[in-house]
Amino acid sequence: MITEKYSSKLLENAINEFSRLPGIGRKTALRLVLYLLKKDNNEVESFCDSITELKKNIKYCKICHNISDTDICDICSQSSRRSDIICVVENIRDVMAIENTHQFNGIYHVLGGIISPMDGIGPSELEINSLIERVKKGKVSEIILALSTTMEGDTTNFYIYKKLKDFQVKISTLSRGVSIGDELEYTDEVTLGRSIKNRQNFESSITGI
Amino acid sequence: MITEKYSSKLLENAINEFSRLPGIGRKTALRLVLYLLKKDNNEVESFCDSITELKKNIKYCKICHNISDTDICDICSQSSRRSDIICVVENIRDVMAIENTHQFNGIYHVLGGIISPMDGIGPSELEINSLIERVKKGKVSEIILALSTTMEGDTTNFYIYKKLKDFQVKISTLSRGVSIGDELEYTDEVTLGRSIKNRQNFESSITGI
Repeated sequence: MITEKYSSKLLENAINEFSRLPGIGRKTALRLVLYLLKKDNNEVESFCDSITELKKNIKYCKICHNISDTDICDICSQSSRRSDIICVVENIRDVMAIENTHQFNGIYHVLGGIISPMDGIGPSELEINSLIERVKKGKVSEIILALSTTMEGDTTNFYIYKKLKDFQVKISTLSRGVSIGDELEYTDEVTLGRSIKNRQNFESSITGI
Repeated sequence: MITEKYSSKLLENAINEFSRLPGIGRKTALRLVLYLLKKDNNEVESFCDSITELKKNIKYCKICHNISDTDICDICSQSSRRSDIICVVENIRDVMAIENTHQFNGIYHVLGGIISPMDGIGPSELEINSLIERVKKGKVSEIILALSTTMEGDTTNFYIYKKLKDFQVKISTLSRGVSIGDELEYTDEVTLGRSIKNRQNFESSITGI
């Protein structure tokens, strides 16, 4: 590792803090810090305030644990949505990704992470018990597991499946297959193999039902 | 432009602030904000403090205007360096880049930017007058203009050159040419043309003198 020499301890300290952020290296951190340094005091203050305010006043929806300004989030409080279909996701970014498709009219359950022993995250660190409580109330007809297709995602899927399989609830998962727009020859073998095994009726594939 | 819908105004506000930083889009901003949200209050506080402290207590070297914790920066106060050779650079990042080469034993003058009418930056916004003052004192033998090879850099070079050409001071600039490790066929014509015109004595090119 190259240790850069900075002309100021204060500068170095700020760079250290910024380079802890994910995906921000020391060069980018320097650029960001120098940018803020050029700005007015007001702007720097409002930058810092936005984070401290968020940290202090953030709420999580009491039903789905999504980030929210209110006790019950916008999605959970919409009466037009089907509250008996729950889509289980890792975090708020996945909620946003699915919302952007405009294809889902149920509600969510945000786990806050996935089971990852390497990072010290076990089932008790996640909102799994609260998911089971939601199912126990008996008003849920379907649980859609929409986690990443990684080993951690699969582990979490399986853990939740085991906990829920004795309840009267349909458990489904996102369909896996060749991405739309992908060329077959560049698709990896596992995905391609699975998409042959789970082949769809052609008519339903074009109508999207 | 796709306007994302966020589940919280506080979150949206923090994302807005982060996405003002250079090179940070809204998706990256969301990732950074969610990262900070997961951290302890202490860590978030020390992140914010590092910026406010820097902003409040930062000093600029009275000689070269480099960022410094003291009135005179580390480089200017080293007696082993030749204070009669001044390398003129745009910002502190350029100082660091040149220092990392270990090829320069003079001192610096940080302009704090380059002349850029598009961004509303004229000569008076930059530390050009203080550079002339340094030269006027008569102890400077050489000024090395080490600005970017952009139109703005060339403009600034020329402006400084005009201001200094009547003083008893040698004005030089970084050599331009084919980058070391580059293949000729991929070098742009302007660079290649200039490097033929300004061809060097072979012996001096290999000894680096």
